[in-house]
Amino acid sequence: MSCLVETFKGITASMDVKNYMVQMGQRARTASRAMAAADTCSKNSALQATGEALDSARNDVLEANARDLESADSSGLEAALLDRLELTPARFDAMLAGLREVAALADPVGAISDLNYRPSGIQVGTMRVPLGVIGIIYESRPNVTVEAASLCLKSGNAAILRGGSEAIHTNGAIARCLARGLQRAGLPETAVQVVDTTDRAAVGELITLSEFVDVIVPRGGKSLIERISKDARVPVIKHLDGICHVYIDDSADAEKAHRVAYNSKTQRYGTCNTMETLLIAQSRVAEILPPLAEDYRVAGVELRGCEQARALVADMLPAEESDWEAEYLAPILAVKVVTGLDQAIEHINRYSSLHTDSIVTEDYSAARRFLREVDSSSVMVNASTRFADGFEYGLGAEIGISTDKLHARGPVGLEGLTTRKYVVLGDGHIRE
Amino acid sequence: MSCLVETFKGITASMDVKNYMVQMGQRARTASRAMAAADTCSKNSALQATGEALDSARNDVLEANARDLESADSSGLEAALLDRLELTPARFDAMLAGLREVAALADPVGAISDLNYRPSGIQVGTMRVPLGVIGIIYESRPNVTVEAASLCLKSGNAAILRGGSEAIHTNGAIARCLARGLQRAGLPETAVQVVDTTDRAAVGELITLSEFVDVIVPRGGKSLIERISKDARVPVIKHLDGICHVYIDDSADAEKAHRVAYNSKTQRYGTCNTMETLLIAQSRVAEILPPLAEDYRVAGVELRGCEQARALVADMLPAEESDWEAEYLAPILAVKVVTGLDQAIEHINRYSSLHTDSIVTEDYSAARRFLREVDSSSVMVNASTRFADGFEYGLGAEIGISTDKLHARGPVGLEGLTTRKYVVLGDGHIRE
Repeated sequence: MSCLVETFKGITASMDVKNYMVQMGQRARTASRAMAAADTCSKNSALQATGEALDSARNDVLEANARDLESADSSGLEAALLDRLELTPARFDAMLAGLREVAALADPVGAISDLNYRPSGIQVGTMRVPLGVIGIIYESRPNVTVEAASLCLKSGNAAILRGGSEAIHTNGAIARCLARGLQRAGLPETAVQVVDTTDRAAVGELITLSEFVDVIVPRGGKSLIERISKDARVPVIKHLDGICHVYIDDSADAEKAHRVAYNSKTQRYGTCNTMETLLIAQSRVAEILPPLAEDYRVAGVELRGCEQARALVADMLPAEESDWEAEYLAPILAVKVVTGLDQAIEHINRYSSLHTDSIVTEDYSAARRFLREVDSSSVMVNASTRFADGFEYGLGAEIGISTDKLHARGPVGLEGLTTRKYVVLGDGHIRE
Repeated sequence: MSCLVETFKGITASMDVKNYMVQMGQRARTASRAMAAADTCSKNSALQATGEALDSARNDVLEANARDLESADSSGLEAALLDRLELTPARFDAMLAGLREVAALADPVGAISDLNYRPSGIQVGTMRVPLGVIGIIYESRPNVTVEAASLCLKSGNAAILRGGSEAIHTNGAIARCLARGLQRAGLPETAVQVVDTTDRAAVGELITLSEFVDVIVPRGGKSLIERISKDARVPVIKHLDGICHVYIDDSADAEKAHRVAYNSKTQRYGTCNTMETLLIAQSRVAEILPPLAEDYRVAGVELRGCEQARALVADMLPAEESDWEAEYLAPILAVKVVTGLDQAIEHINRYSSLHTDSIVTEDYSAARRFLREVDSSSVMVNASTRFADGFEYGLGAEIGISTDKLHARGPVGLEGLTTRKYVVLGDGHIRE
């Protein structure tokens, strides 16, 4: 593979990015056929062999990472991004553990469901199959290279990975290990290809290669994802923002309400499934809000509320219209008093990003209506929004959380990287 | 509704198409909330009441259709299109029967699957929910107005229908009956809106209304669908071409091979699931091809073959490269002799439109490999490609056949117009 990587570099230097990406797409399409037919054992062997290759090449990978860190530092990359770029020994080990976990997941490919006889005599069912070629576009986080590659590989897809340019050397070193792993398992090395040019035009080419790429999964900030979605000619599984709500209903248990609302906001501030707006039924606000606000104050959460909420909590800032639409990703919370369930559902369906919304209630009918009428990818009763996560849902691993409606909604695991085709079995049956 | 339609007309005359479509989109989005929450009984009542309204307005609808036919005829529309535009009494009755059939289908909305306990104590499952607002763009076939509206309605979606401009009066008359049906069932009239302007710019607006429209389903010729897919900013469930294959394997039963290959081509010529290329293993071609070719000759099917096939059948025309990529939709068939299964799969994965491909074989392993390795929306063993159809598959009705991979693949019925969201039930559970 190291020589293959060199060839790619040669190609990049001598031909334009468009041809480079088209050739990569062609190789991926060819490899995807072999990957779709690969048995579970070969795919697991490849994951295992990649882990071994990474372990032996640990020093090379960490040296490449040190080089990337050095040039990123000297070009003034900000501290938070430098931190994400860094592969510490602990992160390296976590990367290897992740490979083992994906190998241990059940293989979704080839499973046939609902194979039933029809009146005509044919049997009709569906078989779960890979999507084909998946393009992943992400920021300078080298561990994503291994994670995304392993999920694509296990789900029988070929992958084209385009990480942030600051990680180019680290990703190159990791790519060599992936190629070695695939090769040892008898699978095509080109099943996982890492874009080996920092030319930003490569992204533009990748997202329009509709002949060779079946789906794009962008991972990163909202502006990256919006830009990609706008220009893509290939379908995109995307995650925009997470404006999540907790609604404390008239009939909520006060203790559960306190616990769920506190955890949904404070368990982590920077995640997409963190609550950004708290809605409280007016019949309960005087009882529930003041002690909750006190706990938020101690935790350092800034509250911005409607007039009714502010009347109950000293120093609460006034919320403006923009607060209902804000994904703070920070210790800030918008608080609104509503008349009851109807107004809560209306507010959520208007302002939510269709990500995750939770009701706290002991009322059977209120729970039933909330589950049916709130149009978000995860709807919850008496549970923290922080549970919206592939691991918590039992998917084993996730490539992202989709706020789209088509194909994959909510946390996307191995199944989200597959689709289904119809299987028809007959015995010489013809249509009359 | 008649007054609502008049209002729309007033709007069209006095404001630009963009505003007209945005307002239609806003009304559809609002209506979609009520439709998502509507119970099965209300939706079935609306379908029934629409049927009754159509039956009482039969004369109005047929008169509107006569007007459309007259102006289409005088503007020189070709005979085949005039035929599709015409609502004969028999077609009118079929339209009413279709409504009853959709009412009789099971309601997919709200079904919760796989609700399981997780180690954290929460229960996680998925609920089937409507997509939201569906835009349907189709040609001048008034029966599609009723069919598409009924499928969207039953699956809990709001619909915006844009039929061919030649059918504008017929579709207007049908729209009034749909509105009456919805109204009688207590559902919002705006759940089904028919675009009431022949301005082609309306299509351009509809396919870019990503704030209000969740998916576009175009129905019509390949050029219409390609144009829409190219310009759409809303996801499109699309059906491009149907280049379907039958492969007669070394171990095929000769009688089944003859029957399946003959039926796949001749049962109907103009449908997307008709075979366009026949592949035959060279070990069997001398035995199987000549009598089959004779039957095709009698049926009037023109054969275009490779050299090996031509050597066995007098007067067979030579096939060119373009024949392997052709969707004839006509009594023409391309014939190619292959060395065996590998070459057949290779040919199909290269030239097939990912629609429907069938193998005729008695060999267990060949059947198993064909099912797994052929990457089409329907893969078959010993069955005619003509079975690839929503009714034959037991979906009850179909809004189209998708050659996409994401979301819906193959025949798309009510389920294809829905998606799934996660449902989480807890008892005050928080994430530690």
